[in-house]
Amino acid sequence: MGKTVLVVAAHTDDEALGCGGTIARHVAEGNSVYAVFLADGVTSRPDSTQEESKKRNNAAAKAHEILGIRKSYLLGFPDNKMDGVALLEIVQKLEAVLDEIKPQIIYTHHHGDLNVDHEITHKAVITACRPVPKSPIQEIYSFEVLSATEWNTPGVDPFIPNVFVDISSYIEKKIEALTAYHMEMRSAPHSRSIANSERQAILRGSTVGVSAAEGFSLVRLIR
Amino acid sequence: MGKTVLVVAAHTDDEALGCGGTIARHVAEGNSVYAVFLADGVTSRPDSTQEESKKRNNAAAKAHEILGIRKSYLLGFPDNKMDGVALLEIVQKLEAVLDEIKPQIIYTHHHGDLNVDHEITHKAVITACRPVPKSPIQEIYSFEVLSATEWNTPGVDPFIPNVFVDISSYIEKKIEALTAYHMEMRSAPHSRSIANSERQAILRGSTVGVSAAEGFSLVRLIR
Amino acid sequence: MGKTVLVVAAHTDDEALGCGGTIARHVAEGNSVYAVFLADGVTSRPDSTQEESKKRNNAAAKAHEILGIRKSYLLGFPDNKMDGVALLEIVQKLEAVLDEIKPQIIYTHHHGDLNVDHEITHKAVITACRPVPKSPIQEIYSFEVLSATEWNTPGVDPFIPNVFVDISSYIEKKIEALTAYHMEMRSAPHSRSIANSERQAILRGSTVGVSAAEGFSLVRLIR
Amino acid sequence: MGKTVLVVAAHTDDEALGCGGTIARHVAEGNSVYAVFLADGVTSRPDSTQEESKKRNNAAAKAHEILGIRKSYLLGFPDNKMDGVALLEIVQKLEAVLDEIKPQIIYTHHHGDLNVDHEITHKAVITACRPVPKSPIQEIYSFEVLSATEWNTPGVDPFIPNVFVDISSYIEKKIEALTAYHMEMRSAPHSRSIANSERQAILRGSTVGVSAAEGFSLVRLIR
Amino acid sequence: MGKTVLVVAAHTDDEALGCGGTIARHVAEGNSVYAVFLADGVTSRPDSTQEESKKRNNAAAKAHEILGIRKSYLLGFPDNKMDGVALLEIVQKLEAVLDEIKPQIIYTHHHGDLNVDHEITHKAVITACRPVPKSPIQEIYSFEVLSATEWNTPGVDPFIPNVFVDISSYIEKKIEALTAYHMEMRSAPHSRSIANSERQAILRGSTVGVSAAEGFSLVRLIR
Amino acid sequence: MGKTVLVVAAHTDDEALGCGGTIARHVAEGNSVYAVFLADGVTSRPDSTQEESKKRNNAAAKAHEILGIRKSYLLGFPDNKMDGVALLEIVQKLEAVLDEIKPQIIYTHHHGDLNVDHEITHKAVITACRPVPKSPIQEIYSFEVLSATEWNTPGVDPFIPNVFVDISSYIEKKIEALTAYHMEMRSAPHSRSIANSERQAILRGSTVGVSAAEGFSLVRLIR
Repeated sequence: MGKTVLVVAAHTDDEALGCGGTIARHVAEGNSVYAVFLADGVTSRPDSTQEESKKRNNAAAKAHEILGIRKSYLLGFPDNKMDGVALLEIVQKLEAVLDEIKPQIIYTHHHGDLNVDHEITHKAVITACRPVPKSPIQEIYSFEVLSATEWNTPGVDPFIPNVFVDISSYIEKKIEALTAYHMEMRSAPHSRSIANSERQAILRGSTVGVSAAEGFSLVRLIR
Repeated sequence: MGKTVLVVAAHTDDEALGCGGTIARHVAEGNSVYAVFLADGVTSRPDSTQEESKKRNNAAAKAHEILGIRKSYLLGFPDNKMDGVALLEIVQKLEAVLDEIKPQIIYTHHHGDLNVDHEITHKAVITACRPVPKSPIQEIYSFEVLSATEWNTPGVDPFIPNVFVDISSYIEKKIEALTAYHMEMRSAPHSRSIANSERQAILRGSTVGVSAAEGFSLVRLIR
Repeated sequence: MGKTVLVVAAHTDDEALGCGGTIARHVAEGNSVYAVFLADGVTSRPDSTQEESKKRNNAAAKAHEILGIRKSYLLGFPDNKMDGVALLEIVQKLEAVLDEIKPQIIYTHHHGDLNVDHEITHKAVITACRPVPKSPIQEIYSFEVLSATEWNTPGVDPFIPNVFVDISSYIEKKIEALTAYHMEMRSAPHSRSIANSERQAILRGSTVGVSAAEGFSLVRLIR
Repeated sequence: MGKTVLVVAAHTDDEALGCGGTIARHVAEGNSVYAVFLADGVTSRPDSTQEESKKRNNAAAKAHEILGIRKSYLLGFPDNKMDGVALLEIVQKLEAVLDEIKPQIIYTHHHGDLNVDHEITHKAVITACRPVPKSPIQEIYSFEVLSATEWNTPGVDPFIPNVFVDISSYIEKKIEALTAYHMEMRSAPHSRSIANSERQAILRGSTVGVSAAEGFSLVRLIR
Repeated sequence: MGKTVLVVAAHTDDEALGCGGTIARHVAEGNSVYAVFLADGVTSRPDSTQEESKKRNNAAAKAHEILGIRKSYLLGFPDNKMDGVALLEIVQKLEAVLDEIKPQIIYTHHHGDLNVDHEITHKAVITACRPVPKSPIQEIYSFEVLSATEWNTPGVDPFIPNVFVDISSYIEKKIEALTAYHMEMRSAPHSRSIANSERQAILRGSTVGVSAAEGFSLVRLIR
Repeated sequence: MGKTVLVVAAHTDDEALGCGGTIARHVAEGNSVYAVFLADGVTSRPDSTQEESKKRNNAAAKAHEILGIRKSYLLGFPDNKMDGVALLEIVQKLEAVLDEIKPQIIYTHHHGDLNVDHEITHKAVITACRPVPKSPIQEIYSFEVLSATEWNTPGVDPFIPNVFVDISSYIEKKIEALTAYHMEMRSAPHSRSIANSERQAILRGSTVGVSAAEGFSLVRLIR
């Protein structure tokens, strides 16, 4: 029987950058994948419009269809301003989603990302996913996001992958999903480009001798 | 002449879990022990009532009598929401208590606990206890609290004890105090159980060859 | 089809202390478990005799039968003096075993243990298990050993578990295996006692809400 | 052609304590040095008056003249209460200054300082100075401030200098600037004294074999 | 006037993998670059022949010509067995080279590499380059080497770059030098391939917004 | 009744640099202080003579008389070449001294020092001082040594003091002892000078508001 997977990200596009290939592989292997986004990703920009917000949501819908995500939740916390919200409030909204989905596997942001929403998302996840008896959650992984994970002060909670998911057969799906988010991507040599994401997947793969991989840092694994 | 000891905890019951045996030993050895609690420990629960708050305070009163705590201070910051208060405000209230008690020895939370109130309590303590000339404070220790200290993301500010207080003769007092807080304890295999607290004391003790101990991480020791 | 598991330990008894319950569970679940021991565990003692060495090997044979280990290899490096051997020599002997067994899963010592043989065993494992293309190895875990892992200088490569294997149904097998090694165990309150090992299993379990667990630190997981 | 240098500090006097000698050397070598202060440094004190604030600003003006700082910006965030402001707001104000100055070299606080304003200043800097294509910023350094950098919990993001700027010919300028801030200095054996600052410069210098130096921790260097 | 640069590597090819582009850039900018290799890189292989050793030296000679290295020193310590040599002996031989070259800038291995010769090379460098008065050495950088730096136990002295040298105009020279070492390179998806080295340079570059870069970890910078 | 203190250092003069003031204070307070030196400190120098060795021992004798050290042990391991000795051999010789002295308090080198003998001395101490039941050892502290502790690669096991011993009344004794070792001291701005040692004591003192202090990193404290 398939497992239930939940991706908890700050903004739409983080899920594709961080674990798009792994999502596609989970789906291909018969698991059910859900996603929840804590912030919306556009309102912090001075010139953000409702139009833009709609475009972003459409891009997300398309990307999620490509990856095979069954359903997405938008919690709507203020973009790039989640440090102004009490953690407990975020945790409680996330717990409601967890109660509904009952996932066994969680993917979320690395706590050492430069982006303040990423850091808070990680904290909310580990708080909401306390390992109490009878909790369904068995696995929690942190992913990396180009232009956020590698831009913090060097040495401050660095991302060091110890889990490598072979996405050799899913790298194309990942690229396709990122293409749906082309509005959020930048041109090389900016860090957040589609070409870089592919390059990163090949390098992470070569670290463990496969053609393409996504790297994760293990938070918790219960067997 | 006896020393003056101050335990600074987020919630009542943290003092018993973290350093109940050490408190009892300090008292037995003629030191005066005071405690200050920054948050109240119940109001964050959706169904918290005044009745519950009263019960919690009664439990604390009983536990403190068992341990021999001379006087307790309740600063009343919002439970599990201390991240919404400016640190300076917490520090100033804590400084007022420090000015009154003039402790030589401080016990407080580990900064790497999952619980946000614990983390902030630690920050408030080290800020309020700056080692300026003529400060009476000579020793600061961090303690561990079951279901908070071991539940943070692995590797993020881990608790690593380097101080071991032999509580072989005081483990019963600690258990008695925790029993007063039975309302806050959980049944095994939940981490926060009385049986686990005893188990932890025996393991910490065996690390250094005694029957039971509480482990601490040294923050500062001036001789 | 079952997986092939290899435990790489410095001395006989380390495998039972570190992952005895997990070995028993692997066996019960249809996996094949092998073990290799790099040093012999007795020759460093000033009064060690051939008789003792034989007793130790008999104890190991019995413990391995209890746990269900299919075959053990003794590489015979000098006990507690492995820092006098070139790492390459150890690695090459270990590679020969790996070539024969072709394991998918490896359990070995934590690199931060106080015992010099443990530290070197870990280094030999990660060197011999380089993740080149076509390597069969998919998972590497570090385990903890009472009276070695917790006795290093605090803060120097601390053991921080992020993998928890539920051994609630296998704790008795672990205790039985340790009993076979009673010659190597000490009486409480020494850290290396059977009672402590059980206590540790219950505490590690309670961290994640199960009755008993062994904790591991993930080195590498490839999926 | 000279380079453009920007010092980003929480409070006036931090720039002199942290990198006063380096500023003077930059000026002597033909570089243009600017400074921006995020908080004002006096309003958190219970008895602070407008008079005091004026005195502090006069001291800063004098110190900056001594050091050769071309122009200073005061962003006016609430002193010792910057944890109450959303990071994004601070970042945006800082970005406006960066856009105007276009510095190649940045000096700012260490992220591990006890003072909450220092920590937030560091975060604001690395967020505002993201290394996007065409950014003028090539070098970012963290400095240490007596009575803040060494007073955090030991082991929490310690300041470890790897850059040493020889200020043998500029130590007198630094002392002179600190003398302008005499109101903020304390008497020995308080950590924040002029004598200590000189002592620290000589010790940092001796680490690398010169008469006096300021130590920095490198955040980023692009060549 | 040009600076004098010394690359201290364990084996020929490490200098090209670690800082080949940076070497080429130094040469292009008028600096003199020397290299010293502590081990020979072939004798540890069971089937190594004198023929192979000669080929390796020829490859190195060609690569060094491509990069513009002025002169190379081979110290001849036993390949992959440098842990069998007393550190002092290595340090003294290295000091002799340093005395001859008198470099201002040093590039060497990262201390956290899996390869034991890399780790020892780093230790020898920092021991031989103690910052005593009048030492000519002003800058020391650690580089990364594919299939060594990323293969150590995750979290053990990770390589975290904080210096980025733009090699956009020198990436071709680096590739050319690696091609001279084709005997030492592997095919993708092995980590140590020419394609991966190029990919890594582009990713390191994109981290800071340039087309290609080599990443370094700063050991010491004196100005 | 007085306590028994043992200083375990690599070379004579390390005890005076690391904890000379603390030794003098222990003696003044009625404790008995012993010292053991694992290496001799001169034979690694190419031109070392028996004459020099004798001078060094005379200096040590004088310094120990000044500080009040009751008796010293010289274990005679090869200077700066202790990495060529099996750790077990060093541990066994040290254990013999521990068995004779039965100290409650130990001072030794920091494990992160650049000097290889310092690092090994620390390892030997924590191995020989395993906290088994009935061990007399209650306190172990690491000290810092100018020109060794601050010269390792930045960030590699940094020395971070959390214990501060007020030596305001003993700084003169420390200086006097260092003067006996004038042969080993260097002139400023070399790190290892008497003036620097005094400066360091005043700075360490000012960190905690006293006139002079020695800083230590706590290894273990059992109460």
